[in-house]
Amino acid sequence: MKKKNKKVNAAILIIGNEILSGRTQDKNISFICNWLNNQCGISVHEVRIVPDLQKVIIKNILELSKKFNYVFTTGGIGPTHDDITAESISKAFKVKYEFHKEAFDILNNYYGNAKFNDGRKKMAKMPRGSKLIYNPSSAAPGFIFKNVLSLPGVPSILNSMIENCKPYLVQGLKIFSKTLNFYTVESTISKQLGLLQKKHNKSVDIGSYPFFRLGKIGVSVVSRSSSKKKLDIVRKDLIKLAKIKKIKTLKV
Amino acid sequence: MKKKNKKVNAAILIIGNEILSGRTQDKNISFICNWLNNQCGISVHEVRIVPDLQKVIIKNILELSKKFNYVFTTGGIGPTHDDITAESISKAFKVKYEFHKEAFDILNNYYGNAKFNDGRKKMAKMPRGSKLIYNPSSAAPGFIFKNVLSLPGVPSILNSMIENCKPYLVQGLKIFSKTLNFYTVESTISKQLGLLQKKHNKSVDIGSYPFFRLGKIGVSVVSRSSSKKKLDIVRKDLIKLAKIKKIKTLKV
Repeated sequence: MKKKNKKVNAAILIIGNEILSGRTQDKNISFICNWLNNQCGISVHEVRIVPDLQKVIIKNILELSKKFNYVFTTGGIGPTHDDITAESISKAFKVKYEFHKEAFDILNNYYGNAKFNDGRKKMAKMPRGSKLIYNPSSAAPGFIFKNVLSLPGVPSILNSMIENCKPYLVQGLKIFSKTLNFYTVESTISKQLGLLQKKHNKSVDIGSYPFFRLGKIGVSVVSRSSSKKKLDIVRKDLIKLAKIKKIKTLKV
Repeated sequence: MKKKNKKVNAAILIIGNEILSGRTQDKNISFICNWLNNQCGISVHEVRIVPDLQKVIIKNILELSKKFNYVFTTGGIGPTHDDITAESISKAFKVKYEFHKEAFDILNNYYGNAKFNDGRKKMAKMPRGSKLIYNPSSAAPGFIFKNVLSLPGVPSILNSMIENCKPYLVQGLKIFSKTLNFYTVESTISKQLGLLQKKHNKSVDIGSYPFFRLGKIGVSVVSRSSSKKKLDIVRKDLIKLAKIKKIKTLKV
């Protein structure tokens, strides 16, 4: 993976009626967000979940691919009629939707001639010029076309493929994060956190998240920055604040 | 809740850096989708997750509120500096961001004068003309302004409030769903499912979702429609397909 000394961003487009109907709880968003942030220094700026409708997919692919460095799609690259991601991306970019020779060979080899039916063959069709994202668990590859990377919706398969996206990505500035738990309620420290955010504006991003855990009420204060030094300064300020307010804290 | 004999739709806007950083796994999307579908006959057509940035929130509120019957937002209505949902919605619709008298009284009463600090007071500020969505678990109300309903991000609190959205919603045609599990792989039935979808196009939506459970491989075929009769017809067709292909099935 090439490195760049600047910020790199991405969007995720989750394609699937089953998520919007509430039938399936999505697990891919947090997995991809974590991986991009922690392994690639790429910040996710937007996620969208859309139905299996060609028009809608095309519109969103075009919007997101223009706006962000990368777009990751999940879902819709299987063998059935509702798997329309690859065809939609082809139409979005006005290129042919056709068999990818290597993908075809991989699948043919995996299933054997006799079991390589039309549904399975469909999984070898993608936008002309795509490069493959190899799939170590169930053969059917994902693909990258322009800045759009398409992965399957089944979490275990997606997880097994994610490392194979790396060769296609430029690594951005890594974003570090530090969390300090305050055993208090948000409103006790909200004013001071606001001032702290103003003081470090643009260099550190401070978020505050209430929690109820093991019978204890608290606030996780999460600081994120590409500079470890600045995170240390914010942490010192936060510990000072806790001392003044006589609030117990826990570094996590 | 008023009823309408037509389709009603909604979008969900999840506001929060913590979801995009991967730190927090969202639980609200599937909860709201399920509730809207099953309790209100309202279909969710799009979900977006965006960061705590005023410009971005305003843009998305305007886009989604124009495009869909309702927009549900989650997150960003707490007491801290990164809670900017109410102010952003006010700016989006160019109305005053001000104290809501009833919300102020509710919070004042809940905390008592002495503990009603500035952070907590902030939770009573909303777009002028908002109506309240009452909060039975932690007092701070959500609000509805125009067709935008704003709820908190903490799942347990959101869940406790969701029923209080009902008076503001028009109930649409209920969408029923039936699931038949096929103990086979997708590609065995993909062609026939495609034909079946064509046959029932527009009246029934057929989705196919592979699963690996308890050591068994299978495909959940989910049919969704506002007509129970049509669902029964599709189910008969599916059972016929299974018999022809000698595939075991399970009604779920």
